[in-house]
Amino acid sequence: MDLQLYLQEKRNYINSVLDKILPPETTYPESIHKAMRYSVFAGGKRLRPILTIAAAEACGGSADNVIEAACALELIHTYTLIHDDLPAMDDDDYRRGKLTCHKVFGEAIAILAGDALLTYAFQILARASLENKVNNNINLENILYIAKSVGSQGLIGGQVVDLESENKSLNEDILNYIHKNKTAALFKAAIKTGGVVAGANEEMLAALDDYAQFYGLAFQITDDILDIEGDSKEIGKSVGSDEKNNKLTYPSLYGIEKSKTMAEDNINKAIESLAIFGTKAEALCEIAKYTLKRTS
Amino acid sequence: MDLQLYLQEKRNYINSVLDKILPPETTYPESIHKAMRYSVFAGGKRLRPILTIAAAEACGGSADNVIEAACALELIHTYTLIHDDLPAMDDDDYRRGKLTCHKVFGEAIAILAGDALLTYAFQILARASLENKVNNNINLENILYIAKSVGSQGLIGGQVVDLESENKSLNEDILNYIHKNKTAALFKAAIKTGGVVAGANEEMLAALDDYAQFYGLAFQITDDILDIEGDSKEIGKSVGSDEKNNKLTYPSLYGIEKSKTMAEDNINKAIESLAIFGTKAEALCEIAKYTLKRTS
Repeated sequence: MDLQLYLQEKRNYINSVLDKILPPETTYPESIHKAMRYSVFAGGKRLRPILTIAAAEACGGSADNVIEAACALELIHTYTLIHDDLPAMDDDDYRRGKLTCHKVFGEAIAILAGDALLTYAFQILARASLENKVNNNINLENILYIAKSVGSQGLIGGQVVDLESENKSLNEDILNYIHKNKTAALFKAAIKTGGVVAGANEEMLAALDDYAQFYGLAFQITDDILDIEGDSKEIGKSVGSDEKNNKLTYPSLYGIEKSKTMAEDNINKAIESLAIFGTKAEALCEIAKYTLKRTS
Repeated sequence: MDLQLYLQEKRNYINSVLDKILPPETTYPESIHKAMRYSVFAGGKRLRPILTIAAAEACGGSADNVIEAACALELIHTYTLIHDDLPAMDDDDYRRGKLTCHKVFGEAIAILAGDALLTYAFQILARASLENKVNNNINLENILYIAKSVGSQGLIGGQVVDLESENKSLNEDILNYIHKNKTAALFKAAIKTGGVVAGANEEMLAALDDYAQFYGLAFQITDDILDIEGDSKEIGKSVGSDEKNNKLTYPSLYGIEKSKTMAEDNINKAIESLAIFGTKAEALCEIAKYTLKRTS
């Protein structure tokens, strides 16, 4: 398969549905709807919703089945970026080469736009659940799982520990906690959602969970490496920002070479987890391999 | 009925369930769980969850049926207070006589504690839906309704317009928009949730909706009056803060006397809306009457 073509097609589909489901900029009060759209359409790679779709396809479902739930996960991802960039958090002026939400709309609207995207994600998840054919107990359980994944003992917990670990001494347990929660939890939820909405059985869901675990870790390690070795134009933010903020990263703990080996090992394990799906998991497999080659 | 005894009993029940469902302070990462609990247990009147329970009782349900959903609405209310108090928003140091969340835990943790309470509310709503006997389509529709009520065209929209109206000239439409969304939307969602979970029919839900509309407006008008005439010790924040911030309020638009008459008229209409419930709506009726007498 041509991975770049696959990613481009899915990205276009996701963007068109995000455009359809988000209130227009002219919706009153305009400022918040402009801010929500500004950040959602600030050039994201749509990796999480693409993973939702690819996971659904591996389980015999289609992109059309899961597109709304997939978009909801992208809205959650966008909300976390808006709040992470705030002055009180990482205080970033740029994200993907564009001014961050609070630099354009002010802090108050940025906080509220993040709140609104999180809230809207649950609205879309509830609506998508009402529309799909899987029984509603399973949908409710998945909403519960997503909320748990992005809550105070999931994604938000990861952000808390990340903030509190700045300028502290390095510790493997803390680093693993941060990335398991700050990054991998939402990947896992996105991948699981694809399986759930496509009606996956227990064995399939377990395989997807393994894939997500290994993939999420490899993604974070390569992210840390890119912060050191990457091209700031391609990444869209200044390189070396982790070091500047004294962030705990894989390269700072293990060195660059060992970090690269760890990323490769995890990608291999992620791919092995897909065995039961056969060729249906080709997209998930290619997405994993591409992680090692990415430059942004 | 003895309203004060009723309110105290329900408040104790709500507090005990909130204590049970919120992660303990010792849950890692501790700072966010401390902040979440600090704000949830900072002396709230629990009006929204009490209204959920009273609405359920009016429809033949019980407090036990709706307690978890009721607590979820209180978590949403608490998240809005934490974010509203932030320096970028209303910049309040005190709330109900206690330091606000960001004054105790810092801005970053306060933003994340708000995010976590909102997220946790949806987790609790999904879990409560899985446990209750009403069919899950109705539960999913109610989750959708709550998300809409507190989103960018509901509660958050009200906060946006409130912020943007500071120092602007008075306008009745804007004032109504703010209060319909910033205050009444969550009251409506709380009251509707009580009806839905108790299995109310269409006629009952319509009556509850009328009650909520009138009650919410009367509540906001009396809130504005208290900001001028109240005792700062009882309110727990300085009086005159609306005037200081050039906020648009009912008294500033209509004067104190006309505002009082409007509050009374709305309470009378709220009570008339309850006719179909007979004596089962006694608590809703007494709660409405009490609005005119409240001092905090």
